[in-house]
Parts: sequence; structure tokens; C-alpha cells
Amino acid sequence: MLAPGKKSSTLIVAGILTLVTSSQGIFTTASKVDGHYEYNFGTIVLLAELFKLCFSLYNLRRELILKPESTQMTKDWRTVSLFLVPSAIYLAQNNVQFLFLKYVDPSSYQVLGNLKIASTGILFRLFLKRRLSTLKWVALVLLLIGATTSQLDTCGHKVLSAPIQGYLFGLLSASLSGFAAVYTEYIMKKNNDSLYWQNAQLYFFGVCFNLINLTYQDVRVGFNNGFWLMTPFHGYNMWTYLVVCTLSSSGLLVSWIMKYADSIVKVYATSMAMLVTMVVSILLFGQTPTLQLMLGILTATASLQMYYMSHDDLFMHSKDSNLMLTGVLVDSAKDSKS
Amino acid sequence: MLAPGKKSSTLIVAGILTLVTSSQGIFTTASKVDGHYEYNFGTIVLLAELFKLCFSLYNLRRELILKPESTQMTKDWRTVSLFLVPSAIYLAQNNVQFLFLKYVDPSSYQVLGNLKIASTGILFRLFLKRRLSTLKWVALVLLLIGATTSQLDTCGHKVLSAPIQGYLFGLLSASLSGFAAVYTEYIMKKNNDSLYWQNAQLYFFGVCFNLINLTYQDVRVGFNNGFWLMTPFHGYNMWTYLVVCTLSSSGLLVSWIMKYADSIVKVYATSMAMLVTMVVSILLFGQTPTLQLMLGILTATASLQMYYMSHDDLFMHSKDSNLMLTGVLVDSAKDSKS
Repeated sequence: MLAPGKKSSTLIVAGILTLVTSSQGIFTTASKVDGHYEYNFGTIVLLAELFKLCFSLYNLRRELILKPESTQMTKDWRTVSLFLVPSAIYLAQNNVQFLFLKYVDPSSYQVLGNLKIASTGILFRLFLKRRLSTLKWVALVLLLIGATTSQLDTCGHKVLSAPIQGYLFGLLSASLSGFAAVYTEYIMKKNNDSLYWQNAQLYFFGVCFNLINLTYQDVRVGFNNGFWLMTPFHGYNMWTYLVVCTLSSSGLLVSWIMKYADSIVKVYATSMAMLVTMVVSILLFGQTPTLQLMLGILTATASLQMYYMSHDDLFMHSKDSNLMLTGVLVDSAKDSKS
Repeated sequence: MLAPGKKSSTLIVAGILTLVTSSQGIFTTASKVDGHYEYNFGTIVLLAELFKLCFSLYNLRRELILKPESTQMTKDWRTVSLFLVPSAIYLAQNNVQFLFLKYVDPSSYQVLGNLKIASTGILFRLFLKRRLSTLKWVALVLLLIGATTSQLDTCGHKVLSAPIQGYLFGLLSASLSGFAAVYTEYIMKKNNDSLYWQNAQLYFFGVCFNLINLTYQDVRVGFNNGFWLMTPFHGYNMWTYLVVCTLSSSGLLVSWIMKYADSIVKVYATSMAMLVTMVVSILLFGQTPTLQLMLGILTATASLQMYYMSHDDLFMHSKDSNLMLTGVLVDSAKDSKS
């Protein structure tokens, strides 16, 4: 699917995205004061969109100066308007998630959130017409299982006992998330336009939608919390700025992945990031690791191996591979016959 | 690995073994009276060994009458003595499991019991020198994960917090279990002797060892519970006889699998049986199915598919397969391009 040269850069970008996304989770938790966010989360998203827009415009300008011939920019409105859609989906999904959380408990919310792995796979197939082998489908199902297993909390409240509306909003939220991913991939790959030009359009609409959304939220509550523009950085601390940094970087990395790799790479990177976050949280906050987290990590690793290992490596017999990636079954015999 | 003709009969035998083994679990539970076994479990094992011996001798005799030329029987002591070993391992394992249970809680006991999947795979590779592809190793790890996930009980007691002795006995028990399997496969395939002749030797030693063990157990406690031979069927009920039937049938089916298929088929059949038993128990006893059971079943199914699906089917693209076995991801698009 990918050219050999592209494959190693994809691996690096996906690895960085995993680390940045997991840091984002940790920084977000760290930015809480007494268990509460003292800032308006919407302003963080807006700041990140602004940063990404400036970054992209700066690089686009540089590209236009350095190699004006090879920098392609499609400017007709029909193409530009396509970049409006991801921001619109993002806004819609925000509202659906809010409704979703009203019907389900946080644990089910987290578990059902993994359905975006399935929805991305299905929409990748249906919308982008990309065919996956049976083995890759099985791998995606296993990624979903691994992510869910790691979050299992059988104690206390019953998981998955929400009213039917909860599941419907969960499905809708997952579908929107999957659609946002494959749609972005579609517009990024539609033509050979400069990545920076495509990003600039994407983030321009992102900034607009976020400005409208922030204002709308304040209007909705009759300016009870004041107007965001008056105190945009209210409640910010060091961690909040780090969240802005990671949010901006992950956005830029995802754009790159959508143009040069695909939505499935993104799904793997973010799912792995979720697991890394859980492990780091345990290390940072001195909790004991759970068996379900270990099982989830093993399953997700097996899934990754199945999806991305080359055909020859998967069917290589153990004589040739003395060390197994999964680390559980180690084959140490050197010389053997079939 | 298997001839195409043998493949379908292996599938049937493995399927029957799965059903028989899961019935065995349910019958064993049903044979309890007020939550206790009123009979001596050792006598059940002895009865089953006796039944299998008679069955094998009867069929051996028939075979010798019907086709005397093709019925091969190696009778030298060196070969016969090999059949002594599985019974000896079985006895040893019984004692190790007893010690194992002394150190760990029942939940950890169950979870650690799944290590026999790994030990069978490793010994299959080391002892029988059979090479497995990376994909098959990953499949075995996933079977282990699926079995463990289904048993997850994060509530109440802490899983896997046993003293180190517990883990060592668990490892020893798993190793013995794996070794018994691959050793039996080795002796069954060593020559072209009649399966019934091989069974007769296996079960003859089984009867001997069980007679000795039952008597030893009574001697050990100074005949406080009487002598087993005086009241061999004490406390038996209808379910107890059904346990004898299923125990005998599963033994004969495993022998067949060891001669004509392999230890890994047995591991899959018994692991799947464990999952079937859990589902049937839920249906029979009106419990609500847990999320971890569903995840475990999905993982084990994915593993089965990876291990046994043909190379071409695994790499077939979704255009050709409209229905996925796993049932989660369904691809309904008919006409598409790559």
C-alpha cells in the first residue's frame, strides 16, 4: 500500500503521534486544579487551531518562495469548501458526545468510544473503497477488543447497562468520528496540492467554527460565565499551555498521516496512545497495573503485528526468527527440522 | 500439515471434543449435592479408564479379526513402556495442582491454568520439533489472552497477588500439562501401530496408576473414610454417570486427535470448550453475560481463524468475502475498486 521509502517515515510519524497523544492525555489530567478544569476547554482548541494555521501559512509561504513551480494550490471554491466539512463534523460530534455522556456512565462511555475503530474501518472500506484482507479485518477487531479489555472495570457499576438512546448516541458518535477521519483522508489525497495549503484551509475553517462555537456557548447561558474573549486565558497554568502544544502537534501529525499514509495508521496511533497513557498514569500515580491492562496491551500489540507485518514475516517459520515481538512465546531452538 | 481428507474429519472430531468437554464441565457441576461432591472423584477417573480400556480391547479384537494383515502391534517392552509415562505425568500433575491451589486463590488458579496453552505450544516446538509461523504463534498468544480475558474478575480479591511459590507451581503444572500432551502425540505417531492397540496400552497403565493412587489416598488418611473398594459407587447420581461417559469419550477423542491431528488441535478444542461451558452456564443458571466473556470469545474466535484459516482465505480481500466470521465487521459493498 505504501512505497518502501514512505513506510519508514510513516512509522516515525505514527510513533511521534502516539507519544504526543499520550502526553496530551497526561497533561490534560495534570492541568486540573483540585480535580477541576479552571479554564474553558474551547479556548484551548481555538488556540491550537490558530497555532496550526500560523504554522501552515508560514511553511506555505516558505514553500512558495523556495520551490514555486512544484507547490500546487487549487483555489476554486468547490475544492476549498470541502475543507469546511471536517470542522462541521467536529462541531456536530462535540454535541453528540455531550448527549451520549448524558445517557451512559463514564465507563461505558469509554468502552463504547472504541467503536470508532470499527467505524473507521468500515467507512475506510465503504467510502474510500479500500479493500482489506480478512487478516486485516481480524486485526482491527482485535484492536477494538484490546482497547476495550484494557478499560474493563467489572467492579461497582454495571458496564453496558445504559438505555438504548445511550447506545444510539454512541454509535452516532463513533460514526461521526470515523467519517471525519476518512473524509479528511479523502480531501487530503484528492489532489497533489501542497500539504501546507490544504492544512491552511482546514485550520482556517477550524478557527472560524471554534470562534462561533465559543461565542454560542456563552450566548446559550446568557453570559453567566462572562464572555470568553474578555478572559481568554482564564485559569491557564503551565500544563494548559503544554496541552495546547500537544493538541497542535498531534493535529499537524494527523494531517501528514492522512495525506501520506491512511486513516488506519491514525486509528492505531491513537489507540496505542490510549494504552501508553494508562501505563504512564500507573507509573506516575503509583497505582498497581491491572491484569486487564496487560491483556489489552498484548492484544493490541498482536493486532498491530498482524496488520503491519509483511506477508513473508508473518509466514516465516520460527527457525528464522528467534525473538518474538509479543515477548511471551520465545523460541530458542537453533537447529531443527520441520 | 494435514492431508485435505483428514482435515474435515479433524474438524468434526475437534467439534465433538469441544461439546463433550463442555458437557463434562456442566455435568460435573450438576453432580454436586448441596454444593459438595458426595463421591470420590478418583473412582470416576478409574471407571472412565476402565471403560476406555474395554472399548479399545473390543475394537482391537474386531480389527484383528476383520483385517489381521493391516493391524500393526509393536509389543517389545521398550515401546510398551513409553505408554507408562502419560499416566505417571497425570499423577504427578494431580499432586502439583493440589499444591498450586494451596498457594493461589481460585480465580488466579483459573487464570494461570491457561498457561498450558503457551507451554503446549513451546513444547510442541521444542520436543516435537514442529515449526510454527509467526502468525500461528501470535494466534496461540491470542488464545491464551482470550481464555484469560473471559475469566477476568476484577472485583473483590486481587487477581495474581499470590506468593512466588504459587506461580512456580502454576508454571510446573502448565509444563506438565503441555508435556503430557506433546508426549502422547509423540508416542501415538511414533509408528503405524493400530490406534486401538496404542489406546489399550495407554489405558491399561491408566487403570493401574489409578488403582494405586486410590488405594494410596486411603492409606494416607489411615482409612478414615473407609476403603474405596468397599463402596466404589458411593454418592453417585445420574450426573456422576454422565461425567464418566463424557470423561471416557473425551479421552478417546483426544487419542484420535493425537494420532491423526496434533496437540494444538486439542488445545483449541479444550479452550473453546471452556468458553462454551461459560456461555451454557449463563444460559442454564440465568446469569447476565459479562463483557469480558464476550471479549474473550471474540479474541479466541479470531485466534482460531488466524491459526486454521488457509493462507489464501486470510489474504483474500473483502470484495470476495461478504460475510466476516467474527460477525462484527460486515462488509456489504458489492462492487468496488482497490
